[in-house]
Amino acid sequence: MSVIDLHTDPGCAVPPAPPAPEPDAGLSLAGWTGDVRPSVIQRMLSFSGRADLVTFALGLPAPELFPVDGLARAAERVLRGDAQALQYKPGFHPLKEQVVAIMAQRGVRCRPEQVLLTTAAQQALSLLARVLLEPGGTVLCEQLVYMGFKQVIESYRPRILAVGTDLRTGMDVDAVQRHLEAGERPAFIYCVTDGHNPLGCSLSPGKRRRLVELAARHRVPVVEDDAYGMLHYERPDPPLRALDDRWVLYVGSFSKVLAPSFRLGWIVAPRELVPVLGCAKDGADLDMASFSQRVASEYLASGGFPEHLARVRMEYQRRRDLMLGLIRAELPAGTRFSTPRNGALIWVELPARYDTDALLETAMQAGVAYVPGAAFAVPGSTAGRSAMRLNFSYCAPPQIREGMARLGRVLRETG
Amino acid sequence: MSVIDLHTDPGCAVPPAPPAPEPDAGLSLAGWTGDVRPSVIQRMLSFSGRADLVTFALGLPAPELFPVDGLARAAERVLRGDAQALQYKPGFHPLKEQVVAIMAQRGVRCRPEQVLLTTAAQQALSLLARVLLEPGGTVLCEQLVYMGFKQVIESYRPRILAVGTDLRTGMDVDAVQRHLEAGERPAFIYCVTDGHNPLGCSLSPGKRRRLVELAARHRVPVVEDDAYGMLHYERPDPPLRALDDRWVLYVGSFSKVLAPSFRLGWIVAPRELVPVLGCAKDGADLDMASFSQRVASEYLASGGFPEHLARVRMEYQRRRDLMLGLIRAELPAGTRFSTPRNGALIWVELPARYDTDALLETAMQAGVAYVPGAAFAVPGSTAGRSAMRLNFSYCAPPQIREGMARLGRVLRETG
Repeated sequence: MSVIDLHTDPGCAVPPAPPAPEPDAGLSLAGWTGDVRPSVIQRMLSFSGRADLVTFALGLPAPELFPVDGLARAAERVLRGDAQALQYKPGFHPLKEQVVAIMAQRGVRCRPEQVLLTTAAQQALSLLARVLLEPGGTVLCEQLVYMGFKQVIESYRPRILAVGTDLRTGMDVDAVQRHLEAGERPAFIYCVTDGHNPLGCSLSPGKRRRLVELAARHRVPVVEDDAYGMLHYERPDPPLRALDDRWVLYVGSFSKVLAPSFRLGWIVAPRELVPVLGCAKDGADLDMASFSQRVASEYLASGGFPEHLARVRMEYQRRRDLMLGLIRAELPAGTRFSTPRNGALIWVELPARYDTDALLETAMQAGVAYVPGAAFAVPGSTAGRSAMRLNFSYCAPPQIREGMARLGRVLRETG
Repeated sequence: MSVIDLHTDPGCAVPPAPPAPEPDAGLSLAGWTGDVRPSVIQRMLSFSGRADLVTFALGLPAPELFPVDGLARAAERVLRGDAQALQYKPGFHPLKEQVVAIMAQRGVRCRPEQVLLTTAAQQALSLLARVLLEPGGTVLCEQLVYMGFKQVIESYRPRILAVGTDLRTGMDVDAVQRHLEAGERPAFIYCVTDGHNPLGCSLSPGKRRRLVELAARHRVPVVEDDAYGMLHYERPDPPLRALDDRWVLYVGSFSKVLAPSFRLGWIVAPRELVPVLGCAKDGADLDMASFSQRVASEYLASGGFPEHLARVRMEYQRRRDLMLGLIRAELPAGTRFSTPRNGALIWVELPARYDTDALLETAMQAGVAYVPGAAFAVPGSTAGRSAMRLNFSYCAPPQIREGMARLGRVLRETG
């Protein structure tokens, strides 16, 4: 799951925030649209075209690692081999079976009929909210969450029960327990178990067991967002779905390990829920096999994926280690940060005198970009003011060195 | 816009309706899910695998007309030429410019900044509902509508103002006027101006002008679904969007003219609304360039599209004329039907003694499939009971002859 879209506060200085959308004065829109702020992704990406800017801002994969040859061969075989790949067809069953095999490698047992293929993880989250959440309903999540998740729930104008997160052990499960024992029954609990976005942490094994137990005892589903789960750099712990096949609704994605523009993800859910999710998908964009489902399936069948994934993991681990070393070397004393076992993101908490939102303009002028921590705070939370999220997957090592040196200079000069 | 998904009444006999989904007894779902019935597409498609079945049921393009070579070359060029085609990127601007050129051929003037690229027309409808419709809000549409549109609005549990349709001149605009003059202010009016799904009719030029005038006067937007618009067989009339660039929100699609599995469509809206729709798309599946956006753009740039489209139009016109002749020759006296100027669908109203839903099982046994008219009726309407929707784009002429002969036999034997 990438931070492809940042809803920053209107106060975010650089790139300059445009005014809130002003729809045609005559057009009467649904109330929730009054709260939306336009995405800054276009501006972030236009900045990333600046040759001298090093950007740690977006959760982008390294483009030089895309398996271009394998995908080109797969596309060719699909198109030349079967014109039905261009037709309306049910979600592609062989890809569901391949997802089952991938899940087994994550330690999860499931069957194809428990899998719904989605237009990437973002749609998976959107469909789960659609079938679980009533307008004005309640959601339990962390104070700092994936920005795309905020976009999923905002049109429901939900009541949010926000809990804290420990950078080493993950979500505050004690706080979850207190809410549930006080009688709260949220529509679901949102949890990024591994490779947390934005925090870069993983839930400890003990907390995994407790969270699943609480979910089952209080009959509250957990939406487990595992978009970064396959990118693990230490011995991986199985996701929550490996511990419970009834209360855990699992979200996976090919975006980080194959190609974001294929827009391919999946849900693993109780079998009975899959047709309901399929109806929600029909309403959203039709539950059918896309061209990219076919190409991805052909690519997976060719056998090159395990090697590709191993190569990506090895390279990202190298970049992670490099960035962690440079955080220690370049950033101010008193800085705290996560040490990600998975994913592509490091959370950096600077000493409290820093305001990372106010600082972003200076940093961009110095040639380095990050996402200010406050951008991830749920409505009503002031978390993240002195923090930033750094991505380590996109930039090659020399750029990481240069960018961290620039960031260090900016922080020394403004601290 | 295809009828890829049919929500039939539970009483629909064939293919046998499965029970309503039974989600895990413990899982508490949003209320709207209690109304959904599982899609019958998988069963319809599995029947269509039966070699001896002629299916007029689904709105599928003819697979033998897909421009496979051109698309394969485009995919190759995109993948070999630019690894960024696999990356997170903003919606692909060159494709927006190509959409502007296509719109000009439909008689619509617009600019790239008024275009939002979507995951096909289904998502376009879904996003427009998202930004226009409040839960429990009001929608004005016809009694017989595209089934995917019913799926778009069902989770809002809307109040529906349903108006009739004339098979020659389209939507009953007098009824629209009565609703608006009585003070109704629906969130929007849904209109398939050309190649109506399921009715196969087009709105008359006079009604186009009146509908747009009513929308502007009463400040109610029209969502114009033009998924079949480019498939015209007579001199086309410009869509509503050509008459009003403020109150008409236009939906277009590449599904019928390029390839459904590319999942590519677009919205043309007032410029101010595009960022709001973009935020809604971010929440749904991220507003970014998909691989298929890149491939389609490359294909369009190669120059082969006008010729391809002309070829498709010519062949579909031939099939339309064939089917219209066979309706006259084979179906019972007293049968009424539409003569489509656009699209891929013919609406057939049999004499009132027929119940097409009850008859479907017999027809399938005789080796021919259609969609019973009642499947398109909005909740509360009993329209379509003696009607069926026939598709003429998918089957080659010999199949059309055979299927219509079978259908004629079934109707003679059961009438």
